[in-house]
Amino acid sequence: MLDIALLGCGGSMPMPERYLSALLLNYRGRKILVDCGEGTQVSMRLLGWGFKTIDVICISHGHGDHTVGLPGLLSTIGNSGRIAPLTIIGPEGITEIVKGLRVVAPYLPYEINIIENPLEPIKLGINVDGIELNGELVELDIRALKVDHSAPCLSYSFYIRRRPRFDISKAISNKVPKVVWNMLQKTGAVEHAGVLYTPDMVLGDERQGIKICIVTDTRPTEELPGFIRESDLFICEGTYGAEEDLDKAVKNKHMIFREAAELACSGYVKELLLTHFSPVMQNPEHYLLNAESIFKNVTIGKDRLIKTIRFKSE
Amino acid sequence: MLDIALLGCGGSMPMPERYLSALLLNYRGRKILVDCGEGTQVSMRLLGWGFKTIDVICISHGHGDHTVGLPGLLSTIGNSGRIAPLTIIGPEGITEIVKGLRVVAPYLPYEINIIENPLEPIKLGINVDGIELNGELVELDIRALKVDHSAPCLSYSFYIRRRPRFDISKAISNKVPKVVWNMLQKTGAVEHAGVLYTPDMVLGDERQGIKICIVTDTRPTEELPGFIRESDLFICEGTYGAEEDLDKAVKNKHMIFREAAELACSGYVKELLLTHFSPVMQNPEHYLLNAESIFKNVTIGKDRLIKTIRFKSE
Repeated sequence: MLDIALLGCGGSMPMPERYLSALLLNYRGRKILVDCGEGTQVSMRLLGWGFKTIDVICISHGHGDHTVGLPGLLSTIGNSGRIAPLTIIGPEGITEIVKGLRVVAPYLPYEINIIENPLEPIKLGINVDGIELNGELVELDIRALKVDHSAPCLSYSFYIRRRPRFDISKAISNKVPKVVWNMLQKTGAVEHAGVLYTPDMVLGDERQGIKICIVTDTRPTEELPGFIRESDLFICEGTYGAEEDLDKAVKNKHMIFREAAELACSGYVKELLLTHFSPVMQNPEHYLLNAESIFKNVTIGKDRLIKTIRFKSE
Repeated sequence: MLDIALLGCGGSMPMPERYLSALLLNYRGRKILVDCGEGTQVSMRLLGWGFKTIDVICISHGHGDHTVGLPGLLSTIGNSGRIAPLTIIGPEGITEIVKGLRVVAPYLPYEINIIENPLEPIKLGINVDGIELNGELVELDIRALKVDHSAPCLSYSFYIRRRPRFDISKAISNKVPKVVWNMLQKTGAVEHAGVLYTPDMVLGDERQGIKICIVTDTRPTEELPGFIRESDLFICEGTYGAEEDLDKAVKNKHMIFREAAELACSGYVKELLLTHFSPVMQNPEHYLLNAESIFKNVTIGKDRLIKTIRFKSE
């Protein structure tokens, strides 16, 4: 089971009634934040999921509406008592951006690891300190895809692997001693009495996980349908709702609602959540039909909209 | 006549019900902003005084709660159509801070002049493009004073000079031709028919102006009473309201309400406005008496509290 909260649904600049587009994922109490505009930490405070357990921050790109809140949030996370390292993932240039913004937050009580422009999937485990990189038991994969904006920009997919069931008959037939059953299931390979036991000796078949994708600040690209394919939830920018704003969308490297819905179709996703609305579009609901006529299961984003995504037959 | 708006009254981090402490001065339609934390531009939008006419931004110090909103605001000012240069004044290090933060707002349609750690009063005029540095007709003086915080920090005083009355008898007795009267009064010295005429040849005695001071993120210092002396409005931090928080105030280089009120007394100011409240102090009104028992004319700051300060007998 994964909870997500859309912290804001605005693009370009923070507005009194709409926080900037950002997403918070909550899996087993640990958090991943995607984007951090001016005010994101205030929306997080209203949400009430806490600051200390934010282990990873993914930044789509360096524009201010996705980054300005970073130094303030990093300070607030510091004030929350965090000392475990925190990972920031972002496109080409993210190291310079974090360095620049941290001119006003140079001292933090925890380390920051930066992963710039990851070309391979990032495989994550969860331990007592939170989400860990390169853990033995992978529970979560983050993939990034370069997209088409006026600055280097990444879309992200998050895949929560579902733990296989413990298979007693398999454990017995593989002659795995009972004392290592629990460790094999929860922490990985174990050596016992000179024999190496691996998790596959006690675990059943792979089970379907949860996939969610966030695509913002880009035109539709050729790679996107494959990247978002069969997502349980596809969060996509719809900077403009109206058909007549297509020229503006092309010029500013954004999408209209119809294009987001077409992507949802071609990616065979289960659900589309629209976000990153232009400040001039005060009522995105007015344009819902422009998306709904193409892809049925669509929701117009709202600040702090929460969704729970369950594993199949959970 | 000068209007001021307290854009926020919080310290440390932005909260859902309290914007970070920042001040906007509005004189003849031109604006000076003091400090720019995360969300300051949102409070400005709620206030509705516009973005294009912000000519000067004074920064007290580099801590995030006074600076994080800068890159977002500079972008929003750019979107408002401003092309006239904008001046940022700040303590030692402000150039590096602005440079760092502008990593996410590198392209702006206007120039930024930075005045780092000004030792002399900054004399400003007002022309059609806004507040200008080094204009001939000075209308506004900004003074900065180094104060005592955990980072280089400045307090600011703003003195609005009141234009002297035009004195016809003086103009006539000085044999100033009528054709230059208006220019002498409004733009400064004029040469006419080979003779240089200066404003003092047509203007009456100096008249009392308006002085306002803002002192934040500091302990009381020896120089402060002289610096704020006889202010019409003294805006001062009161991070903590309670007497028992004095140790915390000393440690964190802030003030309790009583200390702000004592400064107001020793500076013979007309009115004290308290701001920069700690996030843990939810009801600063509860501690009003701690200030009021020492200095009578005190107001507890509120977001977007507006005051109009008039010239004497205006």
